Amino acid sequence: MKKTALIAFLVTSMAYSQSNDQKMIADIYKYSLTKSSCYSWLAYLSNSIGSRMSGSVGAEKGVQFTKQQLENLGLDRIYLQEVMVPNWVRGEKETAYIIDNKTKTNLPICALGGSIATSKSGLTAEIIEVQSIKELEALDAEKVKGKIVFYNRPMEPENINTFKSYGHCVDQRFYGAEKAAKMGAVGTIVRSMTLRLDDFPHTGMQSYGDLPKEKYIPTAAISTNGAELLSKKLKENSNLKFYMKLSCQTLSEVLSYNVIGEITGSEHPEKILIVGGHLDSWDLADGSHDDGAGVVQSMEVLELFKKLNYKPKNTIRAVLFMNEEFGGRGGKKYEELSKINKENHIFSLESDCGGFSPRGFAFQCDAANFQKILGWKYLFEPYLIHNFTLGGTGSDTGHLTSTKIVKAGLSPDSQRYFDYHHAANDTFDAVNKRELELGAASMASLIYLFDQYGID
Amino acid sequence: MKKTALIAFLVTSMAYSQSNDQKMIADIYKYSLTKSSCYSWLAYLSNSIGSRMSGSVGAEKGVQFTKQQLENLGLDRIYLQEVMVPNWVRGEKETAYIIDNKTKTNLPICALGGSIATSKSGLTAEIIEVQSIKELEALDAEKVKGKIVFYNRPMEPENINTFKSYGHCVDQRFYGAEKAAKMGAVGTIVRSMTLRLDDFPHTGMQSYGDLPKEKYIPTAAISTNGAELLSKKLKENSNLKFYMKLSCQTLSEVLSYNVIGEITGSEHPEKILIVGGHLDSWDLADGSHDDGAGVVQSMEVLELFKKLNYKPKNTIRAVLFMNEEFGGRGGKKYEELSKINKENHIFSLESDCGGFSPRGFAFQCDAANFQKILGWKYLFEPYLIHNFTLGGTGSDTGHLTSTKIVKAGLSPDSQRYFDYHHAANDTFDAVNKRELELGAASMASLIYLFDQYGID
Repeated sequence: MKKTALIAFLVTSMAYSQSNDQKMIADIYKYSLTKSSCYSWLAYLSNSIGSRMSGSVGAEKGVQFTKQQLENLGLDRIYLQEVMVPNWVRGEKETAYIIDNKTKTNLPICALGGSIATSKSGLTAEIIEVQSIKELEALDAEKVKGKIVFYNRPMEPENINTFKSYGHCVDQRFYGAEKAAKMGAVGTIVRSMTLRLDDFPHTGMQSYGDLPKEKYIPTAAISTNGAELLSKKLKENSNLKFYMKLSCQTLSEVLSYNVIGEITGSEHPEKILIVGGHLDSWDLADGSHDDGAGVVQSMEVLELFKKLNYKPKNTIRAVLFMNEEFGGRGGKKYEELSKINKENHIFSLESDCGGFSPRGFAFQCDAANFQKILGWKYLFEPYLIHNFTLGGTGSDTGHLTSTKIVKAGLSPDSQRYFDYHHAANDTFDAVNKRELELGAASMASLIYLFDQYGID
Repeated sequence: MKKTALIAFLVTSMAYSQSNDQKMIADIYKYSLTKSSCYSWLAYLSNSIGSRMSGSVGAEKGVQFTKQQLENLGLDRIYLQEVMVPNWVRGEKETAYIIDNKTKTNLPICALGGSIATSKSGLTAEIIEVQSIKELEALDAEKVKGKIVFYNRPMEPENINTFKSYGHCVDQRFYGAEKAAKMGAVGTIVRSMTLRLDDFPHTGMQSYGDLPKEKYIPTAAISTNGAELLSKKLKENSNLKFYMKLSCQTLSEVLSYNVIGEITGSEHPEKILIVGGHLDSWDLADGSHDDGAGVVQSMEVLELFKKLNYKPKNTIRAVLFMNEEFGGRGGKKYEELSKINKENHIFSLESDCGGFSPRGFAFQCDAANFQKILGWKYLFEPYLIHNFTLGGTGSDTGHLTSTKIVKAGLSPDSQRYFDYHHAANDTFDAVNKRELELGAASMASLIYLFDQYGID
């Protein structure tokens, strides 16, 4: 072929494939906004099943419901992966109050995941407030001994990405009890990880680290309004006492499941692209944003491809992980089995940042692949998806260790996420149908492009 | 200066001013997210004052409150502009039901702005459903005469920008009664302008056009769930009857005000940059998104400049317009007076699309200015502001007729706007503090750049 003819051919075929991509992506968004099932799936998961704490009946119902819905899509393969999960239960609702002279002031708290209970009569002790673990560790142990440590460093409001503020704050929740116990504290209270001032305590995982069991101390989150009040009262009277009663306990592990559905690749069935979210939630609410949204969006990717009659070249697999919130057993089990089965994952996409308006994606990949991805950005701009970054992509797919894999995470608008995260208001009414659907369409579009063009 | 020295100087001074701009914009966002007053102003406007229908006591309280807050900022000039506004009142809550044989089914409706009342005993008639004015006008007038016309074309879900869907639908609400009256109808019912299926009727302006007064017919919006039910019942029984009772009336016009505050320009006091929103709301709710958000964001721009000790070159003026919802008298009066006073507006920025996460701006300007503006885009990208378009910028500043002016409108995420627009749920709890503050910071940043670099 002459050079000019070659160029003409290349330009024509590029224009052809660009316009094919544009058309496919337009079809994906249109279907998602007009006919998708994701919102009604979420309604069922949230309103008919409710919370899906791993090990609970709700989690089991979530497994059965999502499996059934995947079966209704007419996929090539649907299966469950067995995984043993912890079974921590909250027990009766927590009680807490300040005892200031003879006045009792109730405050909203909730046990952190994995906490031990207090004694049946509760725990009463003086409080010592700190802004950080570092500040605690600089104290004389005598000052801490026998007290409840109150971690009260707020999330920083000035960051545009609220996950950054969360990352700067969550050490108090995760390591707080372990560190305080080592100093002789008898309990900890942690300011809730939210940027709002409100009355919801936000739970979340904590770890006692390498502490021997007899040294474990009860640990709970307090609402931000509660934290402000407690801090104010401590300034007025540093000798006030705090009472809290937690009834949580750790039961025997339970058999649970990852739920998996896939469309087999027509050209490279051995190459796998996965899309996923986690089926389990916390126990305080139905977890519509965390991560009911990611679950139904991942299922929606498969529905979109089936309904639009798209035959992927590679295998597209939706994985609904179990136990992300409480140890990540599902993600670890998935990776363990994929190693045994010598599976070849080339791409993963996780949605675990809420069902808000999608703004872009975060990627973990090398420079060559990132350049290639940036070349697709114009395809997303009509849908206002613009924020392509390098960064963390998700904790379940984080376990995947394939040497050649591009990982991605959906990046929705983050402003409202921590208003709901791990709290009793993470419910269905907090999810906007269109925002959820736009997220699903963005995910399907990215999967489509990786299916078409592979990775470098 | 030698050429290389000149280039070095230019590059250095460009880098210097870029880094100055970056620093100023960073300061603006930081202040807005940490110390701004806009959210607490909105709390007062929404929760302590409430709805601010033009002509109402609430509107008058809004004028006094915002004027007082502007005075507290220590601006150079604060004043009111007198403007006479219509005074339409809803009266007692509307009633409507389907009469199907002997069964009555209540439906949620609300009178449209400017509608006449029904008789005191209400209006009962058969219903005829159409999807458009065009469809109505193609009908035989005999089929329409004596009936209530029911406009039921939904907003299109497939558009990414929901304002586009609104634009494709709102003719039914605005012109529906006039067109139906010309065909002999006795009333109209219009499907609410929202993409959700819910129970809120959404009001809004309508016009009887050139109809003589004696031909006016009552007109109301029905919730989308109500519209779906009515349509279903009509398919089952096309002879069913509809009852509605509206008690609205138009009273004498009332004296009201635009509220204006400004910082005088240090170099070009005669050149004016305005930023604005509208103080009036509908009567069904406190109008937190429409347009309490725009009002407090505009005030916030001035607060930010004062607190950051920024001395603008040009005059920066916040205008809180009265009566946007019901005739735009405030916007027209502002333009009328600015012509008399020979004022020179070089830039306007309006916020009237809700207090949601800001995504960008729409501009009305020539190609040269748009190119210049696009050159500032990188300054906004750290704040995830990316969507710079040419398009409609707002109805109040739409009245400005300066020959040399760049107009802009804030473009927040549009997915949720019509969930609340003109309905009883447009309340303070629907506004996220950070999203509101990010909008204000984006507006201040754009005003800052126009103040620094002017227009071409």
